[in-house]
Amino acid sequence: MAARRKVGIPKRKKKVSRVQGKMGTAPGTVSYLGSKEKTQSVVTITEYNEESIEINETSNLEDVLKYRSPQKTTWINVVGITDEKFIEGLGKGFGLNPLLLEDAVNTDQRPKIDEYDGYIFGVFRMLYLNSEDEIVPEHMAFVLMENTVLVFQEVKEDVFDGVRNRLASPKGRIRARGADYLFFALLDAIIDHYFLVLEQINHRIEALEDEVYLNPKPIVAQNIQLLKKEVLKVRRWIYPVKELVSRLIDSESHLIHKDTKLFLRDALDHSLEINESLQIYREMSMSLMEMYMSNMSNKMNEVMKVLTIMASIFIPLTFIAGIYGMNFEHMPELHYKYGYITVWVVMIVISIGLLIYFKRKDWL
Amino acid sequence: MAARRKVGIPKRKKKVSRVQGKMGTAPGTVSYLGSKEKTQSVVTITEYNEESIEINETSNLEDVLKYRSPQKTTWINVVGITDEKFIEGLGKGFGLNPLLLEDAVNTDQRPKIDEYDGYIFGVFRMLYLNSEDEIVPEHMAFVLMENTVLVFQEVKEDVFDGVRNRLASPKGRIRARGADYLFFALLDAIIDHYFLVLEQINHRIEALEDEVYLNPKPIVAQNIQLLKKEVLKVRRWIYPVKELVSRLIDSESHLIHKDTKLFLRDALDHSLEINESLQIYREMSMSLMEMYMSNMSNKMNEVMKVLTIMASIFIPLTFIAGIYGMNFEHMPELHYKYGYITVWVVMIVISIGLLIYFKRKDWL
Amino acid sequence: MAARRKVGIPKRKKKVSRVQGKMGTAPGTVSYLGSKEKTQSVVTITEYNEESIEINETSNLEDVLKYRSPQKTTWINVVGITDEKFIEGLGKGFGLNPLLLEDAVNTDQRPKIDEYDGYIFGVFRMLYLNSEDEIVPEHMAFVLMENTVLVFQEVKEDVFDGVRNRLASPKGRIRARGADYLFFALLDAIIDHYFLVLEQINHRIEALEDEVYLNPKPIVAQNIQLLKKEVLKVRRWIYPVKELVSRLIDSESHLIHKDTKLFLRDALDHSLEINESLQIYREMSMSLMEMYMSNMSNKMNEVMKVLTIMASIFIPLTFIAGIYGMNFEHMPELHYKYGYITVWVVMIVISIGLLIYFKRKDWL
Amino acid sequence: MAARRKVGIPKRKKKVSRVQGKMGTAPGTVSYLGSKEKTQSVVTITEYNEESIEINETSNLEDVLKYRSPQKTTWINVVGITDEKFIEGLGKGFGLNPLLLEDAVNTDQRPKIDEYDGYIFGVFRMLYLNSEDEIVPEHMAFVLMENTVLVFQEVKEDVFDGVRNRLASPKGRIRARGADYLFFALLDAIIDHYFLVLEQINHRIEALEDEVYLNPKPIVAQNIQLLKKEVLKVRRWIYPVKELVSRLIDSESHLIHKDTKLFLRDALDHSLEINESLQIYREMSMSLMEMYMSNMSNKMNEVMKVLTIMASIFIPLTFIAGIYGMNFEHMPELHYKYGYITVWVVMIVISIGLLIYFKRKDWL
Amino acid sequence: MAARRKVGIPKRKKKVSRVQGKMGTAPGTVSYLGSKEKTQSVVTITEYNEESIEINETSNLEDVLKYRSPQKTTWINVVGITDEKFIEGLGKGFGLNPLLLEDAVNTDQRPKIDEYDGYIFGVFRMLYLNSEDEIVPEHMAFVLMENTVLVFQEVKEDVFDGVRNRLASPKGRIRARGADYLFFALLDAIIDHYFLVLEQINHRIEALEDEVYLNPKPIVAQNIQLLKKEVLKVRRWIYPVKELVSRLIDSESHLIHKDTKLFLRDALDHSLEINESLQIYREMSMSLMEMYMSNMSNKMNEVMKVLTIMASIFIPLTFIAGIYGMNFEHMPELHYKYGYITVWVVMIVISIGLLIYFKRKDWL
Repeated sequence: MAARRKVGIPKRKKKVSRVQGKMGTAPGTVSYLGSKEKTQSVVTITEYNEESIEINETSNLEDVLKYRSPQKTTWINVVGITDEKFIEGLGKGFGLNPLLLEDAVNTDQRPKIDEYDGYIFGVFRMLYLNSEDEIVPEHMAFVLMENTVLVFQEVKEDVFDGVRNRLASPKGRIRARGADYLFFALLDAIIDHYFLVLEQINHRIEALEDEVYLNPKPIVAQNIQLLKKEVLKVRRWIYPVKELVSRLIDSESHLIHKDTKLFLRDALDHSLEINESLQIYREMSMSLMEMYMSNMSNKMNEVMKVLTIMASIFIPLTFIAGIYGMNFEHMPELHYKYGYITVWVVMIVISIGLLIYFKRKDWL
Repeated sequence: MAARRKVGIPKRKKKVSRVQGKMGTAPGTVSYLGSKEKTQSVVTITEYNEESIEINETSNLEDVLKYRSPQKTTWINVVGITDEKFIEGLGKGFGLNPLLLEDAVNTDQRPKIDEYDGYIFGVFRMLYLNSEDEIVPEHMAFVLMENTVLVFQEVKEDVFDGVRNRLASPKGRIRARGADYLFFALLDAIIDHYFLVLEQINHRIEALEDEVYLNPKPIVAQNIQLLKKEVLKVRRWIYPVKELVSRLIDSESHLIHKDTKLFLRDALDHSLEINESLQIYREMSMSLMEMYMSNMSNKMNEVMKVLTIMASIFIPLTFIAGIYGMNFEHMPELHYKYGYITVWVVMIVISIGLLIYFKRKDWL
Repeated sequence: MAARRKVGIPKRKKKVSRVQGKMGTAPGTVSYLGSKEKTQSVVTITEYNEESIEINETSNLEDVLKYRSPQKTTWINVVGITDEKFIEGLGKGFGLNPLLLEDAVNTDQRPKIDEYDGYIFGVFRMLYLNSEDEIVPEHMAFVLMENTVLVFQEVKEDVFDGVRNRLASPKGRIRARGADYLFFALLDAIIDHYFLVLEQINHRIEALEDEVYLNPKPIVAQNIQLLKKEVLKVRRWIYPVKELVSRLIDSESHLIHKDTKLFLRDALDHSLEINESLQIYREMSMSLMEMYMSNMSNKMNEVMKVLTIMASIFIPLTFIAGIYGMNFEHMPELHYKYGYITVWVVMIVISIGLLIYFKRKDWL
Repeated sequence: MAARRKVGIPKRKKKVSRVQGKMGTAPGTVSYLGSKEKTQSVVTITEYNEESIEINETSNLEDVLKYRSPQKTTWINVVGITDEKFIEGLGKGFGLNPLLLEDAVNTDQRPKIDEYDGYIFGVFRMLYLNSEDEIVPEHMAFVLMENTVLVFQEVKEDVFDGVRNRLASPKGRIRARGADYLFFALLDAIIDHYFLVLEQINHRIEALEDEVYLNPKPIVAQNIQLLKKEVLKVRRWIYPVKELVSRLIDSESHLIHKDTKLFLRDALDHSLEINESLQIYREMSMSLMEMYMSNMSNKMNEVMKVLTIMASIFIPLTFIAGIYGMNFEHMPELHYKYGYITVWVVMIVISIGLLIYFKRKDWL
Repeated sequence: MAARRKVGIPKRKKKVSRVQGKMGTAPGTVSYLGSKEKTQSVVTITEYNEESIEINETSNLEDVLKYRSPQKTTWINVVGITDEKFIEGLGKGFGLNPLLLEDAVNTDQRPKIDEYDGYIFGVFRMLYLNSEDEIVPEHMAFVLMENTVLVFQEVKEDVFDGVRNRLASPKGRIRARGADYLFFALLDAIIDHYFLVLEQINHRIEALEDEVYLNPKPIVAQNIQLLKKEVLKVRRWIYPVKELVSRLIDSESHLIHKDTKLFLRDALDHSLEINESLQIYREMSMSLMEMYMSNMSNKMNEVMKVLTIMASIFIPLTFIAGIYGMNFEHMPELHYKYGYITVWVVMIVISIGLLIYFKRKDWL
């Protein structure tokens, strides 16, 4: 009993309700609501153009805000969004709307794209697999400005290593293009990681499928339900992405060049594919449950058949034995010489008859 | 039996049918149809601008309607809508359409937004948790006019304390903005409370989940059904909000400034998130029922296995005992010296054989 | 068996197929297809303006068609649509399209709104509860012309008493407004009666819910299915209304004034509410069936447990008794002084052990 | 077993695969793919105007193609589409696109409307009931040209007798109107026959409903599944019609006059009604299956109750009898004078106790 | 057990994750990700016009890229897409976008149509049946350029034999038309093969249907689930085609002539039909599972009935025998002359009574 609990039921975190923490504050208030401990934000600034690339790390607001040449593209990556003062300072420095900042640090914000005058703001959910192959979601916010992409992320762990490698190579297309292409490349990296998550889900569906066929224990049903919940949650984070990318493509903002839209169309394709897969996984997990139920009733059928065969054969025989166990004074059979052997013959004939009957019914 | 009824089945209120009470009256007739006792309306008038704020309470119609400076924003909050005369007077005083007033006091009105010349009318359902964590819905109506927001609510209990606190602070953004921002702030407070309700539903789903896994009693199935009904009802009140907020954003009325629309977009985001959550809760509650059914058939399987094992082992043994309980004169075995011990050996062999068979079938 | 049939299965009416009756006639042929006996049409003519009101009843076509002052609004209410000649005469008199007349007397016509030059034609289904609280549908057709509303109804029983009362009162808003407002008022009366029908359905759902919880007999399942069919049928008549009213609101016909559209918007609100309720009732009736099935398997579980407990305890005991009922010559236990009492002790120990086992499994 | 097969499972026709027959031919190739034997096409030519009507039958291509007065409307009805040469000749004579001809003889073509310059082409599925009340689908193609309607049908059996009768009458509206009205009249006749099919389906649902309630045998489940398949198939043929008629109404082709569109609107109404009915039948057939399953578990419950009652009463009694059948030397009860009668009393008390218990549990 | 595994559960290929292979590379990188071994690409070049046709095979890039007369239509068919260098060279030679080339060799690419300046790119999934009637999907990419169609396919096996035959015939329409018609013809060939796949699925549904009715073993349930998965997968590849063809028809590109659009409309018709069929197959496979479950509970019912009848008849009889097996000293019946025969009569009467009871309940 204890063991089943351990496997099947995830422990609920007793978290302080986000809603109650937020209730009553004015919209636009920049307040971090996640579960991470308060730490200083660390900012990595990558400035590059076709000729050169320079990477600096700082925690000093002024370093981040200092003048930068429009000749270069700047990627400002902020790790750690618990320091509300710092974030607000950053926002003021770049002239960002406070509502935007609120969403940037709101770790429960659903994916969104908002166009403001002069910049485009986006929130996406980064999904990656941790060392135990569990799906971990992390909040991520982007601001695409002229020549600059600002990224807010909650934890250091990120999915942008591929982008960094391509930036490091002087021949990469990414170095020749502007901030909008960088923005696309980051988004594309996030979407690419969704595929890893889908593969993991697929793997779990296949494992459960094997278990349902070969070993349909109750724990399997619980795991199917857990899988369904996981798919529901992942879907919630991934589903809106297709709509958002499509809105970027249709955007008339001068910040996104026509060339980059070709690439975004590719990202859209991937989002569509991901949504289709999720839909299929959902139907598959429903089929799994159906299959589990059918295997359950099949097992029940088998149990019942054994009971019925045993009972149907031996109950009549026991009855016959009971007859000749009676103590009536006048029971002529008891005195026949072949009475006993006759009873045995009768019993064997009955047993064989019933076995044939059950065989015919395909119960054996 | 009595106890089950107490827990599982909510008592039906014998309410006078709203419909029959209303049937045959002309549209636009202002008649209160709720279940509250008739009381005097109490009006709280909050006048404020960036410099000052003044709060008055009155039940006198003339006090409410007297001239007010367009320099200030006025929030007229009417608690108690059973006094139809008072409401009609108020409506005439502000030049409101009688159809609007009818909806304002109609406690069964579904959420709506209607734009009239010179004012915007909205009905929303306020949801809050009472002291027993039950979800209580209350009817609420808003009129947004130039410089003035008129609020009708059925009971004193409300969700606007956060707004009042922000109004009290001289530095709050809310003091610097007009009636449309106040309208948004009130709406936002209502939507924020929906999150509390969702959290409560989530909590109940998780509690039921644990019960389904550990203790699947019939009462659990009833509670799952009650939860499903609750989700259906909450959804009915919350679902239209997204559409209504979106219509406000698209509205061309001069009453809503462009700046406020940015904030409304935020409220729209929240409504979308709430609807998604409700959808997920709905699917989860269906999964719960499925899980309950699967646990039920699992339990049945277990019961059947016990019966089958007991019966399959002891029925053949009893038959053997019955054989040698027969009173035939000529039963040679009865006279063998080791007859009795042989029978025991045979019986033990049969039992062990069957136990091995059941073990192999994984029934033990 | 006979009783079940009486309750659960509605008697099928052996009706002459409408389709076969109609097959092969030209479209536009005015032919009554309902089940009422052929009777003379009775026409009630109500002429009114703000000053006066006059009500006449006639069965004479010429009286109906005679010249009327455009100063007054005229409501021509035709009860009885079996007299095809009369209807055709009426249609010619008012210059109506024969297709319209065909629909007006076609008692199977689904709800519709058709705009013709100079008049608007509508078919709606009036639903009311008869004395046994059964839902009775009646076909109803409207023609809105300049200053005149023409109503065709199959039976005298109608839902317009509220409208008549408001017309009778000289101060009513209805007297001051034209034919379009009368048309709205009649439509509104029909929609208001839908609420009564919904209340009845809700009442039946609640009654079935109690039965499912307390007394899940097969007849309950049949009644749930009947309810589902009833909801399906009512939905068929009510569902299109929302679309139709919305089309009236968007209509550019000069016959419907802008003021009246405000009222129609109200009627639209009601239709939406009704559709939502029907949707919720549908989901509830599906939940009911699910609950019924879960209660059924629960009952089965209980039955099986009783069987298993009885059989598991007494079958081993009977086996032991069987053992010492054997007639072997050499059974030492039979001769022990405390053999009998020992057997009893063993049996009681086994029973208690099994009871503890079942208790632990929560089967008792 | 054999009998079940006969009733429940339709025999599969070993048909030559259409697809394989067609694979690799160029589009626009006129090749008949149906199952009818190759026969000569028979053409019935009906020429009429308000004054006169003339009907001729021929199998000669030149007779069909000869010059006709534009003063008259011509209905060319081709029965038999296996003669590909003849069809191609006809097509060339009237200047029709080869793709159109391909579809005209493709008996698997789904319903469609295509507008070409100068003519409109439509394919519909005619459904009728054969002498055994089975639903028979037949392919049918129409070409509406100036003054002429060309109809291709696979078999003589058709649904146009009503149209022919109306044409025969000199006063019929159909004689006064042109080819577009004839086209509508033919379409309307097809749609009217759909109602007959729906009635048949309804009849079968009601029959199955009675069987489910009174006699839920496995064959009933099979018949419900067959019904579901039938509804799916009929839906496939009927469902597109609504869309097609609606496209005809919106068509800007000069071939369809405004007056005829009023009639088409009527046909649209009927298609909508048919689709609604099919939807309801689908839900009903799902309910039927649900009901069947619920009746099945109900029956199982009854069976289990009988077993449990019989076993629970007699197993303990048999045990008691077994006790006193033991052969211990020292069993004092055996020698009591009233031992036997006491045992009977105890047994009767136990039986009555159990019966009361079962009665209380409502199992009796 | 082993056998079941062999039949029911497909072996999972341990494939190198595509996603991990791709992760971190720049978009537009041409890298083959399929499972085929690296081989040289083989290019078949077909040049034709109405007068002549010439077919060449080469693996030399320059041969492929050399100048060609715009008087002829060229079909360049590339078999084998593992040689990334070759593909890139080809792309550069024809001036194709690298993103396009990436998709052309990405064997996981979902179906798509992208319009670029000067060419149209499409990816489709070719489905064919292998020698064991399994459905095999193959990736296929098309580029429609002025006068030229470029086709990329992974394996030699293809579905274009019909097109080749028609090209070989000097009188075929295909020879007279341009590259757009060739493009359509290839697409049409792919869609035609979908019908073969559908037929195979239909065949399997019918086979499973027979098994469900006649022999509902657990393996059948597994096969139904496998079928459902197959339908899901096929649907994923086929479903987008309808949308893509429809986009081609609406395209304003000069590459597709108006005449060809008529043919594309035909292809659209076929895609719609295929999607409808898939939808119907999906519903049928769900019905199959339902039917299987209903047959399972039916079988269970039968098993239970046999058990109940056997137990209900013999348990009471055994009890009676037990009574007269008791060893009480004072049992008067034992000494009656007709005691034994009376007991037999009583037993027979009880048996017959029970048999009649079961007969009445329809259990026999």
